[in-house]
Amino acid sequence: MRAVEWNKSEGYLLLIDQTLLPDKHVVVSCSTVDQVVDAIQRLVVRGAPALGAVGAYGVAVAMIQAQRAGWSADQLVEQVRRVRDARPTAVNLAWGADRVTPFISQGVDAVLAEAAAVMVEDEDANRELSRLGADWILARTGRSKVRVLTHCNTGFLATTAWGTALGIVRELHLRDALELVYVNETRPLLQGSRLTAWELREEGIDYLVQVDGAAASTILRGLVDVAIIGADRIARNGDTANKIGSVGVALACADAGIPFVVAAPSTTVDLATSTGEEINIELRDGAEVTALGGVRIAPHGAKGFNPAFDVTPARLISAIVTEQGVVEPSKMPSVDNLVKEKTV
Amino acid sequence: MRAVEWNKSEGYLLLIDQTLLPDKHVVVSCSTVDQVVDAIQRLVVRGAPALGAVGAYGVAVAMIQAQRAGWSADQLVEQVRRVRDARPTAVNLAWGADRVTPFISQGVDAVLAEAAAVMVEDEDANRELSRLGADWILARTGRSKVRVLTHCNTGFLATTAWGTALGIVRELHLRDALELVYVNETRPLLQGSRLTAWELREEGIDYLVQVDGAAASTILRGLVDVAIIGADRIARNGDTANKIGSVGVALACADAGIPFVVAAPSTTVDLATSTGEEINIELRDGAEVTALGGVRIAPHGAKGFNPAFDVTPARLISAIVTEQGVVEPSKMPSVDNLVKEKTV
Repeated sequence: MRAVEWNKSEGYLLLIDQTLLPDKHVVVSCSTVDQVVDAIQRLVVRGAPALGAVGAYGVAVAMIQAQRAGWSADQLVEQVRRVRDARPTAVNLAWGADRVTPFISQGVDAVLAEAAAVMVEDEDANRELSRLGADWILARTGRSKVRVLTHCNTGFLATTAWGTALGIVRELHLRDALELVYVNETRPLLQGSRLTAWELREEGIDYLVQVDGAAASTILRGLVDVAIIGADRIARNGDTANKIGSVGVALACADAGIPFVVAAPSTTVDLATSTGEEINIELRDGAEVTALGGVRIAPHGAKGFNPAFDVTPARLISAIVTEQGVVEPSKMPSVDNLVKEKTV
Repeated sequence: MRAVEWNKSEGYLLLIDQTLLPDKHVVVSCSTVDQVVDAIQRLVVRGAPALGAVGAYGVAVAMIQAQRAGWSADQLVEQVRRVRDARPTAVNLAWGADRVTPFISQGVDAVLAEAAAVMVEDEDANRELSRLGADWILARTGRSKVRVLTHCNTGFLATTAWGTALGIVRELHLRDALELVYVNETRPLLQGSRLTAWELREEGIDYLVQVDGAAASTILRGLVDVAIIGADRIARNGDTANKIGSVGVALACADAGIPFVVAAPSTTVDLATSTGEEINIELRDGAEVTALGGVRIAPHGAKGFNPAFDVTPARLISAIVTEQGVVEPSKMPSVDNLVKEKTV
């Protein structure tokens, strides 16, 4: 199954529990707003494009629960807002909820149809940006096979299907233009070593997992031709919020003179945000840092500092790739032409 | 007790088992070369200055075992070499063994006396470099209280006493010139969250543990005034090998325009190594990356890439501090004057 699916016969949301992969494959059913919000906040589902679909289907869950529980219109609005605002950094979650909200007055079937359209469009966008990204990378590096470094998980688990940065990796692999992938483990929640490694293994792609601290030296030692990451929010000037650890990769790429590529559907571009300074960075529980897999690793009483994202300034980004095309922020500091039909 | 001690009455080496801290306090006794080598390779004891003392005392362990087992002189030389070469990157291990080797012919008491001198000199060097480092940092930053970022563990556990980078932190704290310490957890073996956090807690110093991937953004966001790290080997041109993750911190400091300081006793300077390119970087078992605390975190069959150290080029280092003084590599690309009585 996909990371996000709708059970049509029963009318609830199904999510692969990504906190338990790769060892346990558990599917979580969400038939209440509480369950949806909990799944988002616990990262049962994560990844900006996947959160777009969850935002859309989360509205349907709220509507069905409203019918069951006899909520007022105001109560429904309040519960939709809870879904929309369950995490602050990825723009896609709010975008997905906002996308279907105009259809609420037409009933749940209309909302579900629009949510399904979000799913289809996201997969199409993923596949198109993967082709564009692979073209750009092969042209820019001039290599027949590239060695890629990636951070966090941006594959089918992070999207409705296929993947963004990892979609480009898949595309390169299909073209027989991929040599090896260095996978940053991505502490604190290990989306790299747990999820990306699992996806690559399933695809039969060669990879090595490394600690996040190794990324800079792997790049400076000349072992990598390009770094490709996803995005949770891209500001108008190209500044990009992504999983904590991304900007360190960008600094190393700039120092080594290799391209640093951001890959995301255009739904991740937020023209209402001028620069990265305006992006709200989610500060998560410090216990995610001081513990691992429920086991405390720091001394009793140790406090963790746990920003979930960082902002890579546009000046460090070689290319932003969406399904609308590629821009090179250091050359053209605007991403307006990556976005279609979007109102600010 | 100290991280490294000699049991005089029984004649063996005592080491705090740093793999089990902070939760379990276990002391390991080493009365054979096998035990010494195993303790070094499993990182029961680690930290370049501490390894200097272990190299020295390891020779005494070999001599006592030689007497017990009736080894030939050649066998003793071979076993001393095993201690000396048990890990390749930190120069101090070989230095400590070499320092006492000329005394072998005078008997074990002479070797033990020289090893004890290594301990005393290392503590003295640590305390002096801490004063010099604190002076330099307060002058350079112009702040009355500084916010420090550090990586790995460079405290009394990594040395014979006191500490190097963490010694400077202690000195700043004693001068009431320390505001807060950001501690990189230091994957894969978590010397930051396990050991540095524990030392800072014992000292009553305010700290926050963060994932290594957070270091760059914490620095770029202006939350840090200075980064201070230790060193495992400093080449003649100032290039510095240190725990994996160090060069990423240096890149962020350079981008943010804050000082990046390397602190080590002069025994860590290796004039026989011209540049960082000549430094042998220990590649450890990939399972340290794909597992944590013995629990596998990556998919079955995942391979880890696990260089234990990286090299920070001199151009990214604001200051190298030893007990002999402070050099600023970007201004004076030679560390010769940090070393006393050393032959190449």
